[in-house]
Amino acid sequence: MAGSSFGTIFRVTTWGESHGKGIGVVVDGCPAGLALTEEDIQPYLDLRKPGQNRYTTKRAESDTVEILSGTFEGRTTGTPISMLVRNQDQRSRDYGTISELYRPGHADFTYDQKYGFRDYRGGGRSSGRETIGRVAAGAVAKKLLAELGVSFTTYVSAIGPVQIDRSRCDFARVWDSDLRMPDPVAEEQARAWLEECLQSQDSSGGIVECVAAHVPAGLGEPAFEKLDANLARAIMSIGAVKAIEIGDGTEVSAKRGSENNDYYADDENGQPRKLTNHSGGILGGISDGSPIRIRASFKPTPSIGQPQRMQSTNGHCVTEVIKGRHDPIIVTRAAVVVEAMTALTLADHLLLNLSARLDHVKKIYAPD
Amino acid sequence: MAGSSFGTIFRVTTWGESHGKGIGVVVDGCPAGLALTEEDIQPYLDLRKPGQNRYTTKRAESDTVEILSGTFEGRTTGTPISMLVRNQDQRSRDYGTISELYRPGHADFTYDQKYGFRDYRGGGRSSGRETIGRVAAGAVAKKLLAELGVSFTTYVSAIGPVQIDRSRCDFARVWDSDLRMPDPVAEEQARAWLEECLQSQDSSGGIVECVAAHVPAGLGEPAFEKLDANLARAIMSIGAVKAIEIGDGTEVSAKRGSENNDYYADDENGQPRKLTNHSGGILGGISDGSPIRIRASFKPTPSIGQPQRMQSTNGHCVTEVIKGRHDPIIVTRAAVVVEAMTALTLADHLLLNLSARLDHVKKIYAPD
Amino acid sequence: MAGSSFGTIFRVTTWGESHGKGIGVVVDGCPAGLALTEEDIQPYLDLRKPGQNRYTTKRAESDTVEILSGTFEGRTTGTPISMLVRNQDQRSRDYGTISELYRPGHADFTYDQKYGFRDYRGGGRSSGRETIGRVAAGAVAKKLLAELGVSFTTYVSAIGPVQIDRSRCDFARVWDSDLRMPDPVAEEQARAWLEECLQSQDSSGGIVECVAAHVPAGLGEPAFEKLDANLARAIMSIGAVKAIEIGDGTEVSAKRGSENNDYYADDENGQPRKLTNHSGGILGGISDGSPIRIRASFKPTPSIGQPQRMQSTNGHCVTEVIKGRHDPIIVTRAAVVVEAMTALTLADHLLLNLSARLDHVKKIYAPD
Amino acid sequence: MAGSSFGTIFRVTTWGESHGKGIGVVVDGCPAGLALTEEDIQPYLDLRKPGQNRYTTKRAESDTVEILSGTFEGRTTGTPISMLVRNQDQRSRDYGTISELYRPGHADFTYDQKYGFRDYRGGGRSSGRETIGRVAAGAVAKKLLAELGVSFTTYVSAIGPVQIDRSRCDFARVWDSDLRMPDPVAEEQARAWLEECLQSQDSSGGIVECVAAHVPAGLGEPAFEKLDANLARAIMSIGAVKAIEIGDGTEVSAKRGSENNDYYADDENGQPRKLTNHSGGILGGISDGSPIRIRASFKPTPSIGQPQRMQSTNGHCVTEVIKGRHDPIIVTRAAVVVEAMTALTLADHLLLNLSARLDHVKKIYAPD
Repeated sequence: MAGSSFGTIFRVTTWGESHGKGIGVVVDGCPAGLALTEEDIQPYLDLRKPGQNRYTTKRAESDTVEILSGTFEGRTTGTPISMLVRNQDQRSRDYGTISELYRPGHADFTYDQKYGFRDYRGGGRSSGRETIGRVAAGAVAKKLLAELGVSFTTYVSAIGPVQIDRSRCDFARVWDSDLRMPDPVAEEQARAWLEECLQSQDSSGGIVECVAAHVPAGLGEPAFEKLDANLARAIMSIGAVKAIEIGDGTEVSAKRGSENNDYYADDENGQPRKLTNHSGGILGGISDGSPIRIRASFKPTPSIGQPQRMQSTNGHCVTEVIKGRHDPIIVTRAAVVVEAMTALTLADHLLLNLSARLDHVKKIYAPD
Repeated sequence: MAGSSFGTIFRVTTWGESHGKGIGVVVDGCPAGLALTEEDIQPYLDLRKPGQNRYTTKRAESDTVEILSGTFEGRTTGTPISMLVRNQDQRSRDYGTISELYRPGHADFTYDQKYGFRDYRGGGRSSGRETIGRVAAGAVAKKLLAELGVSFTTYVSAIGPVQIDRSRCDFARVWDSDLRMPDPVAEEQARAWLEECLQSQDSSGGIVECVAAHVPAGLGEPAFEKLDANLARAIMSIGAVKAIEIGDGTEVSAKRGSENNDYYADDENGQPRKLTNHSGGILGGISDGSPIRIRASFKPTPSIGQPQRMQSTNGHCVTEVIKGRHDPIIVTRAAVVVEAMTALTLADHLLLNLSARLDHVKKIYAPD
Repeated sequence: MAGSSFGTIFRVTTWGESHGKGIGVVVDGCPAGLALTEEDIQPYLDLRKPGQNRYTTKRAESDTVEILSGTFEGRTTGTPISMLVRNQDQRSRDYGTISELYRPGHADFTYDQKYGFRDYRGGGRSSGRETIGRVAAGAVAKKLLAELGVSFTTYVSAIGPVQIDRSRCDFARVWDSDLRMPDPVAEEQARAWLEECLQSQDSSGGIVECVAAHVPAGLGEPAFEKLDANLARAIMSIGAVKAIEIGDGTEVSAKRGSENNDYYADDENGQPRKLTNHSGGILGGISDGSPIRIRASFKPTPSIGQPQRMQSTNGHCVTEVIKGRHDPIIVTRAAVVVEAMTALTLADHLLLNLSARLDHVKKIYAPD
Repeated sequence: MAGSSFGTIFRVTTWGESHGKGIGVVVDGCPAGLALTEEDIQPYLDLRKPGQNRYTTKRAESDTVEILSGTFEGRTTGTPISMLVRNQDQRSRDYGTISELYRPGHADFTYDQKYGFRDYRGGGRSSGRETIGRVAAGAVAKKLLAELGVSFTTYVSAIGPVQIDRSRCDFARVWDSDLRMPDPVAEEQARAWLEECLQSQDSSGGIVECVAAHVPAGLGEPAFEKLDANLARAIMSIGAVKAIEIGDGTEVSAKRGSENNDYYADDENGQPRKLTNHSGGILGGISDGSPIRIRASFKPTPSIGQPQRMQSTNGHCVTEVIKGRHDPIIVTRAAVVVEAMTALTLADHLLLNLSARLDHVKKIYAPD
């Protein structure tokens, strides 16, 4: 099935695998007239690429993007924007022995079950490199959203057992922090924890949070295309995510209605103001104009250096040490991916919502 | 936008609102030849309908389903199955004052922002009655899945602060329990908690868990149509759900790889057996044949009897008591909805996956 | 597969078969705020229904439509509009012997091949009654298009060998003509031809033309979603259509470029004016603001009263006379269906096109 | 809107414009296990590329394809197949004056109306080079269809007023003929006609016919996804096509039912055999196993060397001669495009149809 596309109007299609010739994405449905060059895309790929701290894969990739179509004189034309990143450091020799093993926590067994065989080099399509296309497309979506005032704050809120303390957070520092944490104290604790993981040939899980502010009210649809439903799909489609929460998330289950409802008071100008945002900016699947809050829980990288007990392709259990170049922690590189998927979802809903009201339709086609 | 459809091959379209003439669903893409009558559907609607315990709305509805098309001599024909439930107890007079208020925790404000006005009677399309179509369609999906051996265990695992203890659980009792809890001790504790909520004119959140067993390995797609991504969308599209977890869910973020990876050992027949199921039956977005585990956190019903501080449609803050017929707890009725959405997602992926392998395609079109 | 839906934003899903309980349609994605009641729909169903001339089936159906959802106080709410027409005169007894025959020109054999069996009563889902849902949905689309000034002229331009002469046409008379012909002379000739067909137990093909005027320029997309491509699909999806032409259609193949290009001249106000419309209002898949011209060729009704040589389900050839209630000519009833499918296509493209330009998007979300 | 994708299961997304960096396509949803290399693709691109006769553009392009992803050890993996063709001979200097003119018969005016501006170099996205992606994807579809025995015969049946005579046709010669005509006599007449067009700085229309044999019975869906409806969309989405016919096409409108119905007789083995194929292999939108016959009418290339009267972008009429490198006849290069679009449609329906019957679904998931 055609599973590599996302979105209805602002629609992206990604392609490419770890050890193929390259990775890319086609962004179709971007409105015409948006200023766009490679310089709008590359910074996000740089935030994603390996080698930014000592807890990521040693694979050497420049991840340089080339826009192949869809722009003219520096603006989008409304036609598909194709972007290409060539793979450079495939080194497939490292992966030889993996062909006969189903690595724990990886998609080796399930791909074989689905397709009858698999490209075993570096995880093939299930590799984290698949997210390059998402990040490149997300950069286009962010450029579009910025034109309408939408802004993002994305950060790592937990690495293993270490959690940020909001009273210590400075969100301006996130992209300068190699661990993407807004709390410098937690960052140092996380670094100690990661050293411990490295030494024991182990890896660690973590949490990414993303807040989108100034999203217009009214985005999202009743029933199946609720904004939060599509955000859930978007975020859960990132490899290694095992939970997605909106607003107060899992905490709401233990609450009473009187604790969880968001109440209003008049502000200094006599305008109603929401006093809390337990709902995370979405009610009935539709944005209410307050910040949209998302939390994604990532499992620890399954690739670890310890001997592990696994299936082999010939139907036996074996104990093996898996070689390769892997990340002991994924959330530091995944933060920009979560932001990209959020941006892609919001951009699509922004365009979908243009047709919600007859008076808006008339404003375009039959202005007074 | 057309937001009322779900699925690609096994595709359902729901319609209807709280105080309209009825609620319904069209199921398109069900394979021909499946035995199906109203008697396969009605039991699930009965599990969803109000009045099964004293913590649900007093609205009186028989919720009787009529199959209008798509079957012939008791079997599906492959053409759309249309199902209709007429509304009976609309009593729209109760909702008169609501037209000028934006109820806290409800979609009143967001619908007005989106559409410019709204059907304020009973929440209109954002009413819980919208799930009737989901449950009816889910019953068809379950019938299809049962032909291939897939079975479901669905239950309420928490009501407010009360959680089940797995050592005390008897999952066979769930649908006989008016609170849908497998643990009789927790059930009594939950009952006490709900009485307390009722007396304080308040409501409670809760958790529903769903386990799908004997799902064929290989369902799901790489990238955006991962099985867990589509389950996340499916479940998050149910009103009041604020978090969706697969397998160990949020817990994985604090774990090490060596704790979270699922290891194998040979069983008594020398076959590799998964010793744990932290992954919840899905790796790389594709089912691995072990049980798929889903957890959905529901917020407390926003409709409570206490005075609340809210916006009015004329732009002021007011303190009002909202009248109406509402449920202080939603999870007891939502369990069957979670199961339905899971079944719809699995049925669609089952059919999508038919085209994954050339040898399977040949088995149908060019058998030896 | 889910094949009963049409459109991306303005999306309709039809259901129902000839001898089931009813026929219906769900219209999802209609903008909120459009005035709509059953009185906007019923006149179009009346134009489609049998019994308006002596050359149509004797089946007695009132085809009365009921709107079940999606409107509030006479306006669309933006949520799905469900419409239902109950079947009344099923008389399935007439169709008994057909179960063992594959009628020539019908879908009996192909349905059996596809589904393994079929609802043989009256053609099941392949019955002309399936178009009821299209016409009801098309009426909603026309109401929306009328708000933006789009108007339609639809007529029968040929019945068998009889063609209209444009010099004699009065398009205002079409819906009063029982043969839907604008040329009264051709109408009388066609009537004579149809009498001849009736007497020889035969049927006749014909042509429907539809012209949509005042369609905004800019509708349609490059590549696969060209406006003419979607019109072609829309019209060819009507049973019995074997050809679809845009503008000059098949005639262009024999022309030179200098004959087929549309040239311009200044009009009395010094504005450029297209002198011809060979292109039928569409260039590069996108509307140019001039009238969109469509021509659909319908095959003769395959049900005729003569003995015919056909397959039986047991694999033999037999000569049989098919009983039943059928139309010797279909175009007179199909004209309103062609118009409906054109309107559905245009309504969808109108809404899709809202996102084509960044300046239009800003006009809605960030007006000065 | 995202208009550059085609298909539901076997889904292709094309990108690229005349004077951008390249042209490409992503094929998503191809079953795993199909043998595929560049050598399966290149021959079709060679049939499409300019310079094969003296009636095509002088643009020099090798149109060499590179497969960037989706194969491993010479077989498809089930993941997206990305293919890239770099543009070589852009020569955008030739197109300078065009930026202020709306060329007759081209999409210049409509693109400006839609997007607010356009890439005027060589038609941008509306260029014939857009079909490179279609042909490359079509080659993959043909490889898949060949595994199931489906074969194609595609040819030019008319160039301007010159039509082939079926009694003289040798279909084996088509791809060796520079005009793609099976009738050598007609070919010489067409050559004379084209010389005449060339000398008068004019161009010519033509007709392409495509016959697909050995298509399994049962492909296609009732209602909107009829096989012929999707073929109509597929073919009409090729630039310059103004009419699409199935089977006897427009001729059926003048026929009687007794002439148009296909009758049966027992063959020498006592099996029922269709004596005629007026229906073109499709009844009720579903294939019947006999050859599928398609006819596409192409308008003459709008680019001609004569002075023409057109709009300028500043709102005046001007008479101009358009320079550039263009084809006086398009059908000779379009034949392979028609075949590609037919193959893409059939491949998608082949995969869609896998879920039509419960017994087929069981054959894959629950074999005895």
